[in-house]
Amino acid sequence: MPPAHPFDDTMLDDGDTLHEECGIFGIVGVANAASFVALGLHALQHRGQEAGGIVVHDPEQGFNNARRFGYVRDNFTDPATMATLPGPIGIGHVRYSTAGSKGATAIRDVQPFFGEFSMGGAAIAHNGNITNADALRRELIERGSIFQSSSDSECIIHLMARSLQRSIPDRMEDALRRVEGAFSVVAMTRTKLIGVRDPLGVRPLVIGRIGEDGWVLASETCALDIVGAEFLREVEPGEMVVITPAGIDSRHPFRPSRPRFCIFEHVYFSRPDSILGGRSVYETREAIGRELAKESPVEADLVCPVPDSGTPAAIGYSLESGIPYAMGIIRNQYMGRTFIEPTEQIRNMGVRLKLNVNRALIRGKRVILVDDSVVRGTTSRKIKEMILDAGAKEVHFRIASPPTAWPCFYGVDTPQREKLLAATMSEDEMRDHLAVDSLKFISLDGLYRAVGEAKGRNPKAPQYCDACFSGEYPVEPSDQIEKGFTLKAAE
Amino acid sequence: MPPAHPFDDTMLDDGDTLHEECGIFGIVGVANAASFVALGLHALQHRGQEAGGIVVHDPEQGFNNARRFGYVRDNFTDPATMATLPGPIGIGHVRYSTAGSKGATAIRDVQPFFGEFSMGGAAIAHNGNITNADALRRELIERGSIFQSSSDSECIIHLMARSLQRSIPDRMEDALRRVEGAFSVVAMTRTKLIGVRDPLGVRPLVIGRIGEDGWVLASETCALDIVGAEFLREVEPGEMVVITPAGIDSRHPFRPSRPRFCIFEHVYFSRPDSILGGRSVYETREAIGRELAKESPVEADLVCPVPDSGTPAAIGYSLESGIPYAMGIIRNQYMGRTFIEPTEQIRNMGVRLKLNVNRALIRGKRVILVDDSVVRGTTSRKIKEMILDAGAKEVHFRIASPPTAWPCFYGVDTPQREKLLAATMSEDEMRDHLAVDSLKFISLDGLYRAVGEAKGRNPKAPQYCDACFSGEYPVEPSDQIEKGFTLKAAE
Amino acid sequence: MPPAHPFDDTMLDDGDTLHEECGIFGIVGVANAASFVALGLHALQHRGQEAGGIVVHDPEQGFNNARRFGYVRDNFTDPATMATLPGPIGIGHVRYSTAGSKGATAIRDVQPFFGEFSMGGAAIAHNGNITNADALRRELIERGSIFQSSSDSECIIHLMARSLQRSIPDRMEDALRRVEGAFSVVAMTRTKLIGVRDPLGVRPLVIGRIGEDGWVLASETCALDIVGAEFLREVEPGEMVVITPAGIDSRHPFRPSRPRFCIFEHVYFSRPDSILGGRSVYETREAIGRELAKESPVEADLVCPVPDSGTPAAIGYSLESGIPYAMGIIRNQYMGRTFIEPTEQIRNMGVRLKLNVNRALIRGKRVILVDDSVVRGTTSRKIKEMILDAGAKEVHFRIASPPTAWPCFYGVDTPQREKLLAATMSEDEMRDHLAVDSLKFISLDGLYRAVGEAKGRNPKAPQYCDACFSGEYPVEPSDQIEKGFTLKAAE
Amino acid sequence: MPPAHPFDDTMLDDGDTLHEECGIFGIVGVANAASFVALGLHALQHRGQEAGGIVVHDPEQGFNNARRFGYVRDNFTDPATMATLPGPIGIGHVRYSTAGSKGATAIRDVQPFFGEFSMGGAAIAHNGNITNADALRRELIERGSIFQSSSDSECIIHLMARSLQRSIPDRMEDALRRVEGAFSVVAMTRTKLIGVRDPLGVRPLVIGRIGEDGWVLASETCALDIVGAEFLREVEPGEMVVITPAGIDSRHPFRPSRPRFCIFEHVYFSRPDSILGGRSVYETREAIGRELAKESPVEADLVCPVPDSGTPAAIGYSLESGIPYAMGIIRNQYMGRTFIEPTEQIRNMGVRLKLNVNRALIRGKRVILVDDSVVRGTTSRKIKEMILDAGAKEVHFRIASPPTAWPCFYGVDTPQREKLLAATMSEDEMRDHLAVDSLKFISLDGLYRAVGEAKGRNPKAPQYCDACFSGEYPVEPSDQIEKGFTLKAAE
Repeated sequence: MPPAHPFDDTMLDDGDTLHEECGIFGIVGVANAASFVALGLHALQHRGQEAGGIVVHDPEQGFNNARRFGYVRDNFTDPATMATLPGPIGIGHVRYSTAGSKGATAIRDVQPFFGEFSMGGAAIAHNGNITNADALRRELIERGSIFQSSSDSECIIHLMARSLQRSIPDRMEDALRRVEGAFSVVAMTRTKLIGVRDPLGVRPLVIGRIGEDGWVLASETCALDIVGAEFLREVEPGEMVVITPAGIDSRHPFRPSRPRFCIFEHVYFSRPDSILGGRSVYETREAIGRELAKESPVEADLVCPVPDSGTPAAIGYSLESGIPYAMGIIRNQYMGRTFIEPTEQIRNMGVRLKLNVNRALIRGKRVILVDDSVVRGTTSRKIKEMILDAGAKEVHFRIASPPTAWPCFYGVDTPQREKLLAATMSEDEMRDHLAVDSLKFISLDGLYRAVGEAKGRNPKAPQYCDACFSGEYPVEPSDQIEKGFTLKAAE
Repeated sequence: MPPAHPFDDTMLDDGDTLHEECGIFGIVGVANAASFVALGLHALQHRGQEAGGIVVHDPEQGFNNARRFGYVRDNFTDPATMATLPGPIGIGHVRYSTAGSKGATAIRDVQPFFGEFSMGGAAIAHNGNITNADALRRELIERGSIFQSSSDSECIIHLMARSLQRSIPDRMEDALRRVEGAFSVVAMTRTKLIGVRDPLGVRPLVIGRIGEDGWVLASETCALDIVGAEFLREVEPGEMVVITPAGIDSRHPFRPSRPRFCIFEHVYFSRPDSILGGRSVYETREAIGRELAKESPVEADLVCPVPDSGTPAAIGYSLESGIPYAMGIIRNQYMGRTFIEPTEQIRNMGVRLKLNVNRALIRGKRVILVDDSVVRGTTSRKIKEMILDAGAKEVHFRIASPPTAWPCFYGVDTPQREKLLAATMSEDEMRDHLAVDSLKFISLDGLYRAVGEAKGRNPKAPQYCDACFSGEYPVEPSDQIEKGFTLKAAE
Repeated sequence: MPPAHPFDDTMLDDGDTLHEECGIFGIVGVANAASFVALGLHALQHRGQEAGGIVVHDPEQGFNNARRFGYVRDNFTDPATMATLPGPIGIGHVRYSTAGSKGATAIRDVQPFFGEFSMGGAAIAHNGNITNADALRRELIERGSIFQSSSDSECIIHLMARSLQRSIPDRMEDALRRVEGAFSVVAMTRTKLIGVRDPLGVRPLVIGRIGEDGWVLASETCALDIVGAEFLREVEPGEMVVITPAGIDSRHPFRPSRPRFCIFEHVYFSRPDSILGGRSVYETREAIGRELAKESPVEADLVCPVPDSGTPAAIGYSLESGIPYAMGIIRNQYMGRTFIEPTEQIRNMGVRLKLNVNRALIRGKRVILVDDSVVRGTTSRKIKEMILDAGAKEVHFRIASPPTAWPCFYGVDTPQREKLLAATMSEDEMRDHLAVDSLKFISLDGLYRAVGEAKGRNPKAPQYCDACFSGEYPVEPSDQIEKGFTLKAAE
Repeated sequence: MPPAHPFDDTMLDDGDTLHEECGIFGIVGVANAASFVALGLHALQHRGQEAGGIVVHDPEQGFNNARRFGYVRDNFTDPATMATLPGPIGIGHVRYSTAGSKGATAIRDVQPFFGEFSMGGAAIAHNGNITNADALRRELIERGSIFQSSSDSECIIHLMARSLQRSIPDRMEDALRRVEGAFSVVAMTRTKLIGVRDPLGVRPLVIGRIGEDGWVLASETCALDIVGAEFLREVEPGEMVVITPAGIDSRHPFRPSRPRFCIFEHVYFSRPDSILGGRSVYETREAIGRELAKESPVEADLVCPVPDSGTPAAIGYSLESGIPYAMGIIRNQYMGRTFIEPTEQIRNMGVRLKLNVNRALIRGKRVILVDDSVVRGTTSRKIKEMILDAGAKEVHFRIASPPTAWPCFYGVDTPQREKLLAATMSEDEMRDHLAVDSLKFISLDGLYRAVGEAKGRNPKAPQYCDACFSGEYPVEPSDQIEKGFTLKAAE
């Protein structure tokens, strides 16, 4: 098992960031589908960098797949690989490993998964988390299923294999009705591209059109842009779309629910150039920064983002407050994700490998640092130290999300609850812990306003899933509860 | 020979950017010098990404070296490699290949170069370009030297081998007096770290202190920051420093000249967090943006940088003009430099693989795009098209440097003169060629003001090397003239 | 998919040799079982060179496995890999791909296979061929099993998963009673090592003792020698042994049959230093040569083996006939199995890359060439040409097996029947086709005598499986018949 | 530096074999010379397995080269590499590292070496050893040459660079007259293929013809066979041939000497199918075995070779003595040379990884083991133990060369004198040390007779170089004497 690498961005924080676990993409009705899938996955790389996979089907050559560790750009660009992936229909997946199995993922855990049924094969890729996967797995093994991976998503294929239905889409309906949790799914048969969102629509999934006969499914609109597809609409929460070149067959296999889209997609996960709710994510983040400036103003000389995710909110904060925006921290462009064991000396460099303070600019200044979130607080502390070492007079943190006090069980890699700084400290305690001049998080209502809910959060029926802030889990995390997780006491 | 890769940033522009060819770093008086060299080179990676090398010396194990293609982070971080590089003194080098030999570089062309003399070995690494290298090479071969590389820098080692002087520093003085052009050099013997800048000081080189006995030489101050060294001073133009843990011996082997530092280091090459002339490069670039806004104002809704190099100037333009700054173009973080042959389909994607327009933000807006320079104009054209496709109402280009009309022969990889857009077109012609609403370059005087020359450029005795803008070459490019290059006619 | 390589022994013959498809090895009751498995597989490498796999179990670290393409020596010797394979029990497998999927094997087809059952995990490796695998697979898919490989052997794991029995050995009995064909199996649970031979005992499997508590199962005794184990006995046809450090539990799950061991193991597959039936395979082959000399004498100057498999029979022929033995053909020791695409020019070299005639020795001589078998005849033809080119006066082929006229369906990779030279030609026609002075095969009775059956073959109840020579298949090849294979008409 | 590998044949003996250090090959006048060079080097792989290199010249693409660690079959067969080596003329080299630098060789030490002179480039490859290389190197460095490798052979290129002659062949004559020792050289200019043997002709070099205009130079005739070239003649001792498609220009640059070809080439180094002195090496070795049987008969049941090098002599011993020849020791065909670090457990397996005794055959027998030589005696001891463990009644060693009591300084990798068993023990002492029933070496006269000198060795003017047996060095090993080596006292 390759150890983590200190030049790897994702490792510098000791788990001090949140990671979306997956991006998914599917296409039908184009020549050479695999090239489009590769491009789409490249645009979704921010959602998962550990591994990627592509499955395609060709009328003559049948199903083919390639699954690899590492970046899309490194694995799915050479003609030798791409030549093994012919055909007009394909799906793909990029993934993060979950916290527990970091680095321990075997290639057999890399999606899409494939199953051969008596009526033909199907492949499936999944973004989200199945909250009753352990129970399902036990049940399936008891009945004689052989699991080949440690991935929860494999349950879906086995449930499909045992369904009494006759067609693959019907079997998928059957299977997904047994599944709890948050999931967006793309799947394919020999001729059909299938997309599904769970009843709450926690994870995103959009539909695009390309050319005469082409259809695309993707986690975000930025993946439509890169292949030149036109954004048509989102797959609705609870909807299943079965797509052929001839068009979309829309089904609704689940009992209707009120949608609860993940609000953190706005704050951090989605790419700033993606469109959510008719507005670019960038604009939403700028609005978050403006809201923060209104809620928590402070006198200062400069507003600086913690690169790169804090940038749009910092711009918003600057525009609202009139305090000049500046790049006080510079990010090294040449970090990466590789699997080489570092020397101890280099490992200890930590965040200095990735970020450097613009010393000449910062010296003697009162600096507002805008970051997207505080998870464990370890990075925030190091950054504060770098800024003070460079001679800043004051350091004020402004955070573009409310305190992250609860783990996500819907497909985001979060530390256990006791490792979350906000789970054990108040805002003031965190300020003292980080030893900064001030620390302010945006309020939950402020965040709801910034994403477009003028009246803020509806506490009776929250418009979004905000469990990581509120502890209110819209789907019971039953596997976790069995393992000992304690839900927030009803108030 | 590996073909270029479309996911590689450096290839998307078809030579439409300028590349610094090298970064150099040296250290003496520390335990495990190689780890520091690796970190320093990582911080200088923007100056050269094709290959890197490290040479060290240990009293017991003698000289050792490792030279590799690819990023520092991928080659010089694992304990297995670093264990082969023991000792308290070392130098390193990162390089670009020159335009002509793109991709054709053999590992034997990767610096540092090493030579065994009768009084012991020496290694040398070089940033810049020797303008009489061809003539020197012919002369040395005639006398019986065997060249092992196609690199101009190897001349220095052969000149040293033939010097009649007794010590290695004296031989280096001897050799460098035969060399013409722009060069910053770091070199090492078994015990001495040596740094030299050419008489005009075209390329940068700074000195830092680390710990009790440690000394560092580096192309830029950002490489001092990463190893925790304190910035002491620049090596002066025409100075040679011979450093041991005991201190610096400063020599001046060349006839005194007026300095002519490369002004493009301020505009583009150096990292924004490096310090040049007492100010951060970031601040200088912000000043360039302010100067541009004064010289070439225009009514618009947004000021957007062409990421990432246009960012500081765009911020400056916004601050001066009051027009809001916004990220209208989003850069994919997962581009890279790999050596895989892409499919034709992907190759044709071009800049779309790297940049995406923030469509929802741009639609219906009048947009000012700030870029650092225009070389061939191919990228500018594609970006303009992307912005218009996204529905922008107007596109105004503002360029943070004067028109680049002449090639650099001092260590920067530029296209031949006829490929430079500004060599054949006036500003208005370029505007029409790019089909934008307006296009304005900063004036040469404006640029001089922004870098701190309040009265602008002194045409009788320019304070900087600005040959790429002015065609006035401070050192005659004799090899080039022999190959047919025509100097600007005296006016 | 990597193309075949011309420097690869296995490719030079265009399918003109027979390949054993697998070697298996298991061990329990030793520290660091994986190292022993690696050594055992190395000794069995001649039985399969395409890929290998090892599964081990450790009380603390559970099951671990590694499966790789290529040689054991290249994959299972470094401490990094071996450190991932801890524990006192393990099994392993080396394999050939079958003719159809040559080079197309995915890593998921590499054994051992692993299955998680409700009572714990089990791993299984298999040598032989399941003749009703297609039918079993269809049935299992119909019932909802998801196959992960294209290997027939995966059926066994799925049958076990669906068994109603409570223990893993009982489930294995259950599963194997559904399986038809020839198979030797090694399997393991967390604590038990299991070995099985099919009722006819077509493929070999032996038991050894090592140290105080250690037990070994292996395809051949040469794998006992390399780990220093003592040869105890063969697993009997139809026997299942369930082994713990405490001892062997012997079961007999199948209806009793008369054994039909593969006679070709004596001729070619087994290593000459292995013991079969109390005698070294080398001695049996020498006896075959003596028998050949008696049956088909000829006047000549030299007896030369076709290296290396013809060597023992050639020695026997020489000893019996008194004609001097000599190495008339020299084999290049540096052939190998690599996965690089050759140039066309090199591909055309064919057998000359591997074999060279000892020209000075051969010139003017009457040469007897002894080879183990004739499959397609292409290699024999090339060798004859090389010998004549070198100036031999006469060339006489003597073949240490009867004409191979029928394909093997019990775990040996043979061409389709119509590609077998002996399927379409008589001995005399083959002699004319190869254009040699004489060509003689050993008789089937002669072969039986050489392996120790003094009275030759019992036509009513043959003592061995000799289907490849006689067309009499002891187990009906039902999948093949379904695909159109025609059995020999009853006479 | 990769550590040695226990599955590597060359490591099992702890330096207990002698290694030829190089094989050389050159060709001119064919299309695609590089493919022929690769084939020729493949046939010469037994002369050096650590690394190989090829240099070619094409009128349009100039000189190109590729140098790699590992086998020819792995490095010089894929079209990608071969496409970088165009042109009708080329030379190549395979090498062993010398004992001192085992594994430490840098790629820059891999031949051929290349030098650019004012009249054009030349490449050179060398088999042998320059006995005054240290002195030459010091002199050349003093004069200003920069050495790039630690190889002695680089001296030749530097001497050529400094020659006052006008043409490359003349410069090579000039250079080689300064060189002492044993050397066979192939070299090339843009149009000429050059071959040279030292005045004593210690190392072999042969000339072949191919096609209309093609000429080949190779260390042995087996490399002519593989490319389909016809053996013309040997390059004579002291001869230089300068070859173009038009023909051979033969020169004699050195003072005439009496030839002293290496007698060990007959015993061990050359391939058995090569022709030396008009007879196959195989036949000579068979004759050595016959001679041994005459000199040292013994009653026994079997004559067994130590594989593979003892095989021809064992056959000869059997033929002369009438004792049956048998393969009592079986060699694993799947050993190799890879660069993976083994586990300690595997490392300790030693020779058992490579050789296994044919237990069933050996039990209770009196066995004569025929080996080519005894170096340190460690392998002989292990083999004896294996044979006795298998139950042999008596073990008699017969060695196909006289006691090796002196190191070779002419291009063979031998241990230091004190490590040679025969340097410190008499034949009887060695027998007792190895604890065998008898041990006999062939006499020096017997060896001379077997190679065709009917009257045996002429002690006044020995016909061969036999320094390793006699201690009589035909060229003074001056570098070694300077390092402290003591010549045999005159008797």
